[in-house]
Order: sequence, then structure tokens, then C-alpha cells
Amino acid sequence: MNLKLNAGYAAAELVKDGQVLGLGTGSTTHYFIEKVGQRVKEEELELFGIPTSYQSFLLAKKWNIPCTTLNEYSIDLAVDGADEVDPQKNLVKGGGAAHTLEKIVDYSAKELVIIADESKEVEKLGAFPVPVEVIKEATQPVISALTDMGAEPVIRMGVQKDGPVITDNGNFIIDAKFPTIDSPVDMEIELNTIPGVVENGIFTEMVDKVIFGTKNGLKEL
Amino acid sequence: MNLKLNAGYAAAELVKDGQVLGLGTGSTTHYFIEKVGQRVKEEELELFGIPTSYQSFLLAKKWNIPCTTLNEYSIDLAVDGADEVDPQKNLVKGGGAAHTLEKIVDYSAKELVIIADESKEVEKLGAFPVPVEVIKEATQPVISALTDMGAEPVIRMGVQKDGPVITDNGNFIIDAKFPTIDSPVDMEIELNTIPGVVENGIFTEMVDKVIFGTKNGLKEL
Repeated sequence: MNLKLNAGYAAAELVKDGQVLGLGTGSTTHYFIEKVGQRVKEEELELFGIPTSYQSFLLAKKWNIPCTTLNEYSIDLAVDGADEVDPQKNLVKGGGAAHTLEKIVDYSAKELVIIADESKEVEKLGAFPVPVEVIKEATQPVISALTDMGAEPVIRMGVQKDGPVITDNGNFIIDAKFPTIDSPVDMEIELNTIPGVVENGIFTEMVDKVIFGTKNGLKEL
Repeated sequence: MNLKLNAGYAAAELVKDGQVLGLGTGSTTHYFIEKVGQRVKEEELELFGIPTSYQSFLLAKKWNIPCTTLNEYSIDLAVDGADEVDPQKNLVKGGGAAHTLEKIVDYSAKELVIIADESKEVEKLGAFPVPVEVIKEATQPVISALTDMGAEPVIRMGVQKDGPVITDNGNFIIDAKFPTIDSPVDMEIELNTIPGVVENGIFTEMVDKVIFGTKNGLKEL
């Protein structure tokens, strides 16, 4: 059973004709975009997609979903993935290095639905390191600041390229493992006040609904 | 009398042999870098400069001040300009579109000295619009968020190029005029929590000393 597919296809059924959609990034939103694309074709839906990455842009193109930008339209419904989801629907995102544009898109959507397989559900955020997008010149000062906050920060390295991963915005990602994240709301703000931090992967007070794909079917938060 | 020159030259006298300097950006720090360059030559000082912009990098090169980065050295003394300075030494910066790297450099310095002509001294920040550096894709959502906060936001336009000014980091600047800035500390944080905002031009709780050039000589805060 493909839990990611189940969650992604379920979210695609929420889409209504005429909507502007935020298109999240990752292996679960992949299925959402696929199913939306099939519905566009079969039901002749008129939609616009606003991608959160080059990945989702290319997928939208593959499925003939017309794309636009936040500079032209506002978003009715955004569907995005997550690396961790807590019971208050706070998230850690950014395993795909796309969390900056994801936060811009998700934050501006009228409705935000998160889709994930059940392995992403956690009691408390923090087992997954928090991705922090930084301006290159600030790498060492941000590492120092994160260390002062108690984290173990690591520059994310590429596999298909030598040296650090470069984001779609041309920046580095520092993955910051904290012993605990007691207040996601406070930590999201604190991380964004470090000079040189473009955006961090903690998402709070944003999510309307979570759809988990589980071995026993769908589960909603 | 050149008030900017007086302030810049005075700050250059604070520099000690062997220091790593943060080199601010603008028409006042121009004089600071010039005088540091003269001292390097005449007194054979051994210094490193860490520039806050291509402007200050090029000036440092002109004056044969060796340059390095925050990824190699930490800063003993940073000297930078400001567009507004209040009695609590809070600042508005970013008239030169360099405030993101300025904040990274200034924040990491052991000592931060601000230099300005007396016209920059204000009772309360906010007559000068707050520069906000934004990722291009987020322009409209950030404008909406700033408007919701009560500001009149304007995309900064180029003169020597058509269309918007592009920062050294490849982003746009939105100049946000607020009716008042009652709490600079809160506003600095609030602006940085808007998704898509890279950094804003409010600098708080950072400055050790301000040197104003005035018609009656130097004045310190």
C-alpha cells in the first residue's frame, strides 16, 4: 500500500474548479500534483498552480496544470508535505530544501492542507533536524548562533554535486539538531531573528488540516 | 565642513593594529575606509576588513586593505552608517540596500560603532521608510502583510537600471513607511517573521557607540 499516494490523492479530491492552488514540494505532494493533473484532464477543471519549487513547477508542467505566481494571484488552497507533524499541527519542513518558498506560499493560502505518511506524525517536534536556509556569507555566524542555542548544526552537503547543497534561492541549508523543541512558536521566531537566516523549517499556526496515509486508511488531524 | 568625513575619520582613530574590521556601506563609512586605508599605509597596520557590500569591498581594495570573510575570521570592530538613530541607539538602515549583510556583520562584531552626520539623529524612528529585503516571488504577499501592519509599502525602483533595484543578494527592496514605530524591537522581529522577508532595516540592541558629525564638532551617544 502506498501511503503517500493515498494521502496525496485524497487531498486532490478537495480541489474545486476555478481554484488557485499552492503546489507543495516532495515525494507526497508529487502524488497530489499527479492526481490534480489527471482531474484537470478528465474533468476539464480550470485551475492555476503556484509552485513552491522548480520540482513542483516541472511536475505541474508535466501534467499541463497552468502555473502562475503570487505576484498575480492569491491562493485558495495549498497542499504541502512535511517531515514532522505534531498534535498541534506544527511542522518541521525543509528536507527538500524548499521550505522558504513553501512557507511563503503556504502562509498566504486561504486554506492549507498537509499530507504525509503516518511515519511523519510525532508527539513532539525535533527528531528531524530543523533546516535553516542561510545567506552564504553568514554561514559561520549562523552556525555559532545555532550552537549557542544548543543545536548541533551541520551544513547540508550535496550528493549529485560536490560541496554544499544550493537552494533554489542560491543559499545554503544548515540542518540544526536541537535536543528538544519545547516551544515551536518561539523557536520559529528566534531562528528567523538571527541575521543571515532567510527562513527556517518550523511552521506554526498555519495548518488547517492534516491528512495522514496510514496502513489502516486515511487519518485526519 | 564635511560632517560625514569628520565622523568617519574619528571612527578610524579607534582602529588598533591587528584587528579584524567590519566595513560598513554608504557615504559616511566611505570616509572611515579611506582613513583606515591611509593609516594602513602610513603606520603599516596589519588589518583585515570584512566588507558589508560590493561597495565597501571595492573601497577596501582601492585602499589596499586585505579582505576576508566571516567564514574565516570574527570581527573585533565594525563601523557602519545609519539612516536614522534614536536616543536608545536603535537604527533604521538600508538606504543603500545593503542592510542584510550589514546586519550579519554588525551583529557578529565584538564592538559596533555607528557614524553619521547629525541629520540622522531622531527622537523616534520612522520618518525614513524601513527597507525590507524580500525574495522576488514573495513581493505581493509581503506587500499585503506590510499593508496589514499599517505601512505604505513601495518597491524600490532603479535609476541606473530599469525596474526594481536588485540587491547584492539578488533580491528586491520594499520601502515600508509606517505612521509610527512605537517599539523598534518588536517591529524588527515582526517584520522578520513575514515569510519571504530576508532581513529588515531596523537594528536594535546592537550598537555600542554612535559618533555624530555636527556643525559644532563630534557628538557621541
